[in-house]
Amino acid sequence: MTTARRDTYTPETLLSVAVRVFNERGYDGTSMEHLSKAAGISKSSIYHHVTGKEELLRRAVSRALDGLFAILDEPGAVRGRAVERVEYVTRRTVEVLMAELPYVTLLLRVRGNTATERWAMERRREFDHRVADLLGAAAADGDLRSDVDIRLATRLLFGMINSLVEWYRPHPDQTDRDQLAETVARLAFDGLRKAG
Amino acid sequence: MTTARRDTYTPETLLSVAVRVFNERGYDGTSMEHLSKAAGISKSSIYHHVTGKEELLRRAVSRALDGLFAILDEPGAVRGRAVERVEYVTRRTVEVLMAELPYVTLLLRVRGNTATERWAMERRREFDHRVADLLGAAAADGDLRSDVDIRLATRLLFGMINSLVEWYRPHPDQTDRDQLAETVARLAFDGLRKAG
Repeated sequence: MTTARRDTYTPETLLSVAVRVFNERGYDGTSMEHLSKAAGISKSSIYHHVTGKEELLRRAVSRALDGLFAILDEPGAVRGRAVERVEYVTRRTVEVLMAELPYVTLLLRVRGNTATERWAMERRREFDHRVADLLGAAAADGDLRSDVDIRLATRLLFGMINSLVEWYRPHPDQTDRDQLAETVARLAFDGLRKAG
Repeated sequence: MTTARRDTYTPETLLSVAVRVFNERGYDGTSMEHLSKAAGISKSSIYHHVTGKEELLRRAVSRALDGLFAILDEPGAVRGRAVERVEYVTRRTVEVLMAELPYVTLLLRVRGNTATERWAMERRREFDHRVADLLGAAAADGDLRSDVDIRLATRLLFGMINSLVEWYRPHPDQTDRDQLAETVARLAFDGLRKAG
């Protein structure tokens, strides 16, 4: 891990360093001192870019949330049968999680002691609700099995998707990423068992 | 939360208090002082029962691990087609997780700084491998869809199961618990989509 030179520092590099430190130490356990050391710049240089660590948290989780909410406006999420739309959203959520791994990891670990953390949790729940609504619509269309409770299914679906932050490590191979997103969608919608 | 009276203290009550504190503060963040305060007994009384906090950790994760490994010896896990056995193990894993929630939660959060933590992680991986072997056997029988990688499927299956510790809260209603275990098995093996 190299430390960037002061004259090449941008808000973007500072953000990526901050997210790494937040994920390593936890947001609560991170001080401006830790950020300054990890970034290799003085605290006053950091304050030149942001008002403090809470602003860095807000920017970081916003990046994850913007990526996730953008999915819901994509053609695959707004056109067609609900069951196809929710499967599309599942696949794309996995892709955004892989593409924005440290940011989504931070979002999922946020626990709610500050206003920013509570806001992030609220927005995350809102995303989950939007997906639950899609699942509800698919059930109303008669496209989902009737013996599964939608609220429970939503939690299990996100449990499976979000578990990726625990073990997924970025891979340069695009085929690998496509396969992972496809596997999650297959497992969630068609299950492991071979159709008999 | 009441503190137990000294004269009624047993190793069992001490263990359940320790697990609660470990889950709240993290194992690393818990001192004997914290345990003494939470249990309402002196540190020397705790040392009367155990050699220190690492022994409490070992006992706690052993309880979770014993519960999980016992599943693999049950008739449903050793007799019949592999696909039925692994579905049985999935359902029972969810049941053990619900029955031993604080112990399994602690097991899943262990990160490996001490010998006991590394041992717990190793045993947990061994359990995952046993389930992966069952999935492999089911695939070899031709009972699983062929487009899903077994290693990936195992990770996603446990991702879904283990996510329960994040939101499941004990419920006195046995029907509720049965339904949850059944839903996880249905989702994992048959998927959300209505068979067409």
